[in-house]
Amino acid sequence: MTPENIMTLDLIDTPAAIIDVGRMKQNIASMQQRMNALGVKFRPHVKTSKCVDVVRAQIEAGAQGITVSTLKEAESFFAAGMTDILYAVSIVPSRLPRVMALRKHGCDLKIIVDNASAAAGIVEFCRTADEPLEVWIEVDTDGHRSGITPEEPALLEVGRILHDGGVKVGGVLTHAGSSYELNTQEALAALAEQERAGCVRAAQRLRDAGIPCEVVSVGSTPTALAARRLDGVTEVRAGVYAFFDLVMHNVGVCTIDDIALSVLTTVIGHQQDKGWVIVDAGWMAMSRDRGTSKQSRDFGYGQPCSLDGTPLDGYLLIGANQEHGILASVDAGRASGDDDVKARFPVGTRLRILPNHACATGAQFPEYQALESTGALNVWSRFHGW
Amino acid sequence: MTPENIMTLDLIDTPAAIIDVGRMKQNIASMQQRMNALGVKFRPHVKTSKCVDVVRAQIEAGAQGITVSTLKEAESFFAAGMTDILYAVSIVPSRLPRVMALRKHGCDLKIIVDNASAAAGIVEFCRTADEPLEVWIEVDTDGHRSGITPEEPALLEVGRILHDGGVKVGGVLTHAGSSYELNTQEALAALAEQERAGCVRAAQRLRDAGIPCEVVSVGSTPTALAARRLDGVTEVRAGVYAFFDLVMHNVGVCTIDDIALSVLTTVIGHQQDKGWVIVDAGWMAMSRDRGTSKQSRDFGYGQPCSLDGTPLDGYLLIGANQEHGILASVDAGRASGDDDVKARFPVGTRLRILPNHACATGAQFPEYQALESTGALNVWSRFHGW
Repeated sequence: MTPENIMTLDLIDTPAAIIDVGRMKQNIASMQQRMNALGVKFRPHVKTSKCVDVVRAQIEAGAQGITVSTLKEAESFFAAGMTDILYAVSIVPSRLPRVMALRKHGCDLKIIVDNASAAAGIVEFCRTADEPLEVWIEVDTDGHRSGITPEEPALLEVGRILHDGGVKVGGVLTHAGSSYELNTQEALAALAEQERAGCVRAAQRLRDAGIPCEVVSVGSTPTALAARRLDGVTEVRAGVYAFFDLVMHNVGVCTIDDIALSVLTTVIGHQQDKGWVIVDAGWMAMSRDRGTSKQSRDFGYGQPCSLDGTPLDGYLLIGANQEHGILASVDAGRASGDDDVKARFPVGTRLRILPNHACATGAQFPEYQALESTGALNVWSRFHGW
Repeated sequence: MTPENIMTLDLIDTPAAIIDVGRMKQNIASMQQRMNALGVKFRPHVKTSKCVDVVRAQIEAGAQGITVSTLKEAESFFAAGMTDILYAVSIVPSRLPRVMALRKHGCDLKIIVDNASAAAGIVEFCRTADEPLEVWIEVDTDGHRSGITPEEPALLEVGRILHDGGVKVGGVLTHAGSSYELNTQEALAALAEQERAGCVRAAQRLRDAGIPCEVVSVGSTPTALAARRLDGVTEVRAGVYAFFDLVMHNVGVCTIDDIALSVLTTVIGHQQDKGWVIVDAGWMAMSRDRGTSKQSRDFGYGQPCSLDGTPLDGYLLIGANQEHGILASVDAGRASGDDDVKARFPVGTRLRILPNHACATGAQFPEYQALESTGALNVWSRFHGW
């Protein structure tokens, strides 16, 4: 990007969430190529962007269907023309009327469940419904959150409640979210294999018990990028890969230069004796996510870059109030004085801050500013709420 | 609140941000009474709620004017009929056209500055503007963020740039935000006095130099509630007191029963062997704010309560993914197994989670559900973005 082409970043109000469209498209293309090579379908998780423009780019690259984390996402993306949607948070029966309304309007919305109570509620609900539901069973392959482990009796119990109750069991899915805690290719590849094998095993147990189970869906950004084989898997899900972030950098699945989301900010003051530069990106813009604090490299509230995206090595956003960020040089992890901060970063200077966690930072903004390689900026709106 | 009156909480989608209107009005009344007794005006900071209904209650209780942290708040509250507005983040000249547009439409918007560079920019801007601006100077009384310390030469330098340049210096303001790090009445009262004395001293230095300085504005929720005298102060600002939260509980300025904001959530599953209850309030609902992690009592991602608001002692939201929260019993700070979680919290159970930081949690929601003591629920919308 040439200096002329980033001049548009001087013309908009700050803070603003900037998407580097070139980087984003490259991230999307790389993941899709990888999935194609592994012979599986790819169903991106749209909770990261909650943005129709981003998801259209994923579908144009070859994605088949989407994954959502809220019914609002399902409703919004269905309104934008997408029909093959997986709602990947275990359902509670009180949400079924909203699910059914989407199905009746032609949305091929799949729901998931990981317990007998909700499965029984689904069967009960379907008895008086005039449109069938499709349910996938959530499998726990790494102990980090929800799901039924592959060998548990509950797996077949839930499958039988649904199947015998006349509800279609469409598949099994798992999410090895503990991959975010790893940082070597070996460990990631091992977890990807654990995720694959566990989910395939769960599908096999269901099939052996006479319960159809067509789909085997796995994924997280790190395991998707580390998997060496995906035998038995039919589709992969991942979300944050479209933008990447500093947490993913520390996990080892992207470089700093792959990160496509940044927060545009303006210098509003200094505390010269402390070497502090005060910027208008506080936690309301960056989010309170401190995901790198437990990783090998702590990026504070974010990595400052110049306007053209070059990281300012040795500087971090070391603190954040609601609308104030504190940017300072860091020396061996401690803030250090810097006599020259006023001269180096005068009031009005614009910078870009790479976020710890793209899903959390994006959520702070009603819209993205999509920066094309030509310098053109387009507003891409995103959803908020449930 | 009787069981009948909280039945409305069974009828709305979760997660939802619930305001206990009775508690909120009590918090607002207590603060206003305190400010009246101390003989100062009160200008609430509306960044906490970003909600016209909440701010109307503050004004009805006696507040005079509002404080905002973004120009979007200024524009939104001006559109709702409020005119006396202080934009309390140091201005950069690139924002002045937006400020001027509000002034021209009749908004008595005051801006603040803490450096010579921006002050010179304001003077330059005003030379060709057809409407005057009013500027307050930000004073640093506790070293936690922005502002000029009371004895610094820069204070008079900035004052002279503005005054000699024909721009009205309307006052000085300070915010002792380091009060959030304290937890005894003695320390809070001492910081309140430091905040008062420093800001009054800055005003005096300006006046002694022939620069008018009518307003002396101080405040943070903890110092406002701890101040024993406010001689020389003309107004106080505070924000989070309207809702309070677990951080303020740990600071010692409210009880658990004063907290007026909670997140309504539904149990969606369990990991029985770990004693985990999975709920649909993850960090997207609670925010990533872990403000109590450095305090004397760490509340994890929040304090679970029953639907009527009774805290479930011994339970915390110990973890959070984007749309999943992990609720568990805690024993001496460590999660402990609980054989009975499925029986105690069946799938579909609704709970309320008190947040660490009301400003951060509120920001995750497009609207509040205002719960009256009658059980009536009203939707109060809130602003998002800049």
